[in-house]
Amino acid sequence: MDDLVHDLARRSRVAARALAATTGAAKDRALTAMADLLVERSADVLAANARDVEAARTSGTAQHLIDRLSLDESRVAAMADGLRTVVALPDPVGEVVRGSTLPNGLQLRQVRVPLGVIGIIYEARPNVTADAAAICVKSGNAVLLRGSGSAARSNAAIVTVLREAAESAGLPADVVQLVPADDRSTARALMQARGLVDLVIPRGGAGLIREVVDNATVPTIETGAGNVHVYVDADADLDMALDIVLNSKTHRTSVCNSAESLLVHKAVADVFVPRVVAALRERDVLVHGDAAFAAADPAVVPVTDEDFDTEFLALEISARVVDSLDDALDHVRRYSTGHTEAIVTSSMEAAQRFTLGVDAAAVMVNTSTRFTDGGEFGFGAEIGISTQKLHARGPMGLPEMTTTTYVVTGTGQVR
Amino acid sequence: MDDLVHDLARRSRVAARALAATTGAAKDRALTAMADLLVERSADVLAANARDVEAARTSGTAQHLIDRLSLDESRVAAMADGLRTVVALPDPVGEVVRGSTLPNGLQLRQVRVPLGVIGIIYEARPNVTADAAAICVKSGNAVLLRGSGSAARSNAAIVTVLREAAESAGLPADVVQLVPADDRSTARALMQARGLVDLVIPRGGAGLIREVVDNATVPTIETGAGNVHVYVDADADLDMALDIVLNSKTHRTSVCNSAESLLVHKAVADVFVPRVVAALRERDVLVHGDAAFAAADPAVVPVTDEDFDTEFLALEISARVVDSLDDALDHVRRYSTGHTEAIVTSSMEAAQRFTLGVDAAAVMVNTSTRFTDGGEFGFGAEIGISTQKLHARGPMGLPEMTTTTYVVTGTGQVR
Repeated sequence: MDDLVHDLARRSRVAARALAATTGAAKDRALTAMADLLVERSADVLAANARDVEAARTSGTAQHLIDRLSLDESRVAAMADGLRTVVALPDPVGEVVRGSTLPNGLQLRQVRVPLGVIGIIYEARPNVTADAAAICVKSGNAVLLRGSGSAARSNAAIVTVLREAAESAGLPADVVQLVPADDRSTARALMQARGLVDLVIPRGGAGLIREVVDNATVPTIETGAGNVHVYVDADADLDMALDIVLNSKTHRTSVCNSAESLLVHKAVADVFVPRVVAALRERDVLVHGDAAFAAADPAVVPVTDEDFDTEFLALEISARVVDSLDDALDHVRRYSTGHTEAIVTSSMEAAQRFTLGVDAAAVMVNTSTRFTDGGEFGFGAEIGISTQKLHARGPMGLPEMTTTTYVVTGTGQVR
Repeated sequence: MDDLVHDLARRSRVAARALAATTGAAKDRALTAMADLLVERSADVLAANARDVEAARTSGTAQHLIDRLSLDESRVAAMADGLRTVVALPDPVGEVVRGSTLPNGLQLRQVRVPLGVIGIIYEARPNVTADAAAICVKSGNAVLLRGSGSAARSNAAIVTVLREAAESAGLPADVVQLVPADDRSTARALMQARGLVDLVIPRGGAGLIREVVDNATVPTIETGAGNVHVYVDADADLDMALDIVLNSKTHRTSVCNSAESLLVHKAVADVFVPRVVAALRERDVLVHGDAAFAAADPAVVPVTDEDFDTEFLALEISARVVDSLDDALDHVRRYSTGHTEAIVTSSMEAAQRFTLGVDAAAVMVNTSTRFTDGGEFGFGAEIGISTQKLHARGPMGLPEMTTTTYVVTGTGQVR
């Protein structure tokens, strides 16, 4: 499989060269053609998807996974809309990030350029196929898509459409390629194609991300692990705190920016803990709490160190009372995965100390953790949320899919 | 040794927290105190250095390495000046990189924050000790310095001074720590202290860089490999081309931005090849050339594929005639290490095609490759030249030693 994947990667490199030398208008024409052809060919895509869904049912796949896998007319239309949204975004390539004329007259410009070839390794949802292709092509990169075996027919049908549209618009079809998902070895080959692939991004559950980060020799960006805390300070508006805790925990539970842990300052614990426990119970949230929480409701189960370390991604939350802001900071620093941390407070000083004291991609002051999201941030498109510190941190949009080159123009200057 | 290094790293993390929460003025006071105390204590530093130099002589170290190791009053003064240069640079921490008010009223700011703990693994020159400490502390990071065994006494004396000065200025001494260089295992422990160290940067020869990139589990930045090409186009001003080739090759040979390979368009080969061969010979440069170069001078030795792949770092150069700009681009793409590539041309079109067609940290148009340098670019301080595409590419200054956090401030917004 290594040879097959490396051959695909070599074709991607050739396509990437053409893409790097093309114009923003040409890329936008290709993306628009992709959107149009997806709608035109939606019957093909849906037929392929129906076969994936049938196979999933036959093999006894859980209903929520079948739901994620299933496409219909409106989901295909949404994919096409996603492509058009990316068309409307500014082209990051060619942006001059920094520039000056040096004392010796040299003209220095730091210019955004594509990374080259990007591999995306992802799980069931076939809409990622179109999303990822759009973001990569718009940022001037050829993309190698390695979806899951369960969506293989859907992905193949979508990629066929995208390639045909790219070619009809004058770009090489190979700007988008599908890596076969026959077995795990193709994913391994992709993440280890050092020198052929410039970046691999995993999109999916914790297991997939760990597998990529641990085994990739290609540069990779860790995404998505979110052991997210909400800290309710002594100076919090408690109505606001209740809204924020409930929204952060229950708005959607399976996503990385949902809250997993609640810390309450002891000064407001007597009032706030019973309120929040009752409200969480009403929404079927299982609370793993310390003694103060347990005293509020017999349904609270004792919290363990492991609970504080767990990303539940379900209607469960760990909770404890802290003695001070510093105590809260110590707790967050110990258990944080560096995704999103939130404070609810009316104190400017507490907000500032919390912001400087945690070490995360996003810090929320008096707002829900659910806002850590490329769409909510106004980036127009997102390819995941980086929880590492190098290159990109937080929601990644088009600029994060580029690197830069210093272009230095002179008239014969030497040292 | 792992335990020792990990203990040091844990102390660095504590110091890093204090540093992240301090002000730019406090960091500048510490750096100024370091500069002052280095000059005041230069006798101590020089005495320690004399013992390193004596040990190097006894063990039969080559003279050029002893030269690099040796300090004197003026070199210590230069270190102190380097610290003061960094004081004068703007503080990257707190810079708002991007900011907006979202439609729901949330205030979004992307703010530069320190990475945390940075490890530097470097070879003989003791001045790197002060340089690296200055850049890391100014960018709000605690630094773990792992120099070479041959400079151990010098580095220890310098670090003692830096720590004492930091403490006198109110910062934790542990913002600067020296990792013992007793054996290789301490370097290995440093580059594998995942979760304790945020970034490791190797500074030194190709062997050191390879060792770090291949074995690090901590994020690392590849620096310095420079198989640098100068391409003389059909439309080149040949006097300018000669100056640029000579300067790029001979101004300093042991550095990563010096030229290693020369490509000449066939349209100017008849005139230019004999001129450049004669001029290179006059400067004692051994030319490994193709038939056209060999015909110009019997001293030219036949060039091999291996020569084109070699970073000589010496008075040697590989050279060939190319049929076209595309031929030159194919050659560069095949052998480039992505550091610096240069074109000499009067054609706007050729310059643009070359700039888009190579894939390097820096592209020089009508100027010497020797200008790829943080100092020359006006960054004030440089901690190496990245040849990778993620996070930082090209000369790295203070901003490259930071990451960002999105700070989102609201008034109770939920989704």
